[in-house]
Amino acid sequence: MLDPFMITLGLQAEVPAPGQARVWGTIRPEFLNSWGSAHGGFLYSIADAAFAMASNSHGTLAVALATHMEYLQASQAGAEVEALATEVHLGRGTAVYRVEVRSGPALLAIFTGTVYRRTGHKTSLSAGR
Amino acid sequence: MLDPFMITLGLQAEVPAPGQARVWGTIRPEFLNSWGSAHGGFLYSIADAAFAMASNSHGTLAVALATHMEYLQASQAGAEVEALATEVHLGRGTAVYRVEVRSGPALLAIFTGTVYRRTGHKTSLSAGR
Amino acid sequence: MLDPFMITLGLQAEVPAPGQARVWGTIRPEFLNSWGSAHGGFLYSIADAAFAMASNSHGTLAVALATHMEYLQASQAGAEVEALATEVHLGRGTAVYRVEVRSGPALLAIFTGTVYRRTGHKTSLSAGR
Amino acid sequence: MLDPFMITLGLQAEVPAPGQARVWGTIRPEFLNSWGSAHGGFLYSIADAAFAMASNSHGTLAVALATHMEYLQASQAGAEVEALATEVHLGRGTAVYRVEVRSGPALLAIFTGTVYRRTGHKTSLSAGR
Repeated sequence: MLDPFMITLGLQAEVPAPGQARVWGTIRPEFLNSWGSAHGGFLYSIADAAFAMASNSHGTLAVALATHMEYLQASQAGAEVEALATEVHLGRGTAVYRVEVRSGPALLAIFTGTVYRRTGHKTSLSAGR
Repeated sequence: MLDPFMITLGLQAEVPAPGQARVWGTIRPEFLNSWGSAHGGFLYSIADAAFAMASNSHGTLAVALATHMEYLQASQAGAEVEALATEVHLGRGTAVYRVEVRSGPALLAIFTGTVYRRTGHKTSLSAGR
Repeated sequence: MLDPFMITLGLQAEVPAPGQARVWGTIRPEFLNSWGSAHGGFLYSIADAAFAMASNSHGTLAVALATHMEYLQASQAGAEVEALATEVHLGRGTAVYRVEVRSGPALLAIFTGTVYRRTGHKTSLSAGR
Repeated sequence: MLDPFMITLGLQAEVPAPGQARVWGTIRPEFLNSWGSAHGGFLYSIADAAFAMASNSHGTLAVALATHMEYLQASQAGAEVEALATEVHLGRGTAVYRVEVRSGPALLAIFTGTVYRRTGHKTSLSAGR
């Protein structure tokens, strides 16, 4: 269920129920920016992976259209990070998800994403690890 | 000038002039999603790296606040990708950038990002490769 | 506490506690689009008004930087609409808010907004109607 | 071609070519915020109106999904404002537009919007005033 980029980033994932997903990993030295925090692209990628898994969990192909990311706090090298995606709206042709990125109790970022649902195109992603 | 995450993703970069940046790389097999295209997180990371370099190119520390990404077209494994960041607005305390992500003639994604400028905090990033 | 544009749109508002705001109004015929639903700009304006009140409720001037709006469902002429703003993050220089726009049980739109806080500039907005 | 909300805000509009739109109006006293500038909701509404006209100009019904607004500079009471929408991407099922909001030479705000295109649903909006 993990795609190549998730494996490259050392991420793990589960889909607890249709429309939800949890993705987690560690802020390794190779994922840092110039200031010793997780790179914005790394934190986004965790959120985006959770968004992709949640939106494809209904068995219909979901293609990302637009996303929004708010960076709230810097993170620390070596810390664990997790992204939790929840479904805000599931329509016939589109759907919307919110993702929260946390490291322990700290809320690092919030993410919102919209997908286009290509009815008739099945995906093999489904609930479970 | 390349930070650890940019090196991990095999990216290269230049800052042609203050407020601008260009970041480029190759869509390697390890950066793909489940459908054989560049992962959304990978494309975003190139855009975000260009945004970070452009916004820090004035010598004042710039911290990402909010970003927006629109995915327009799928890309192909093996293709070259480049992100070009331009400054839309430079204020005393904040600044706004637009980034276009292209692969050859195809416009893959557009990105908008806002930073908070911490006047008094210098950065070592500057124009040039 | 209501500004001229809120009065023009017939909106009412309260600030139940610092960092929160509720704004409500009616979808009058003059606020419709060509399809007989509330205009996207009208729904946004309610959300934006709640965002402005919540972000200025601490007594420090808060200036809107970036906002994101997701339209989930169409609304109906004559319906009541309300926007509820909550604070996601309050930093020294910036803050982030989420707003939900509802009409009865229907979630019409979600909004995220970032402000720049001009410490040293006071505002007269405060908690209460 | 002007919808009720546009008339309420005193806006005028033209569609110079399919995929484009220009909307303009005056910052009247009743459209101000508490600080004597155009209300964020008013500036957004002009941008959103241009976005709606541009996206519906191909004769296929276009429904707004997600929008993003960056506020760059404050405006002044009495000033003229115009929003210019251009098409960034036109797909079969979705499309993306950028809007710039200006007052004279000043760039007040930039906006990005995504629509879902309901193929098979016609609209009566078309090019021309």
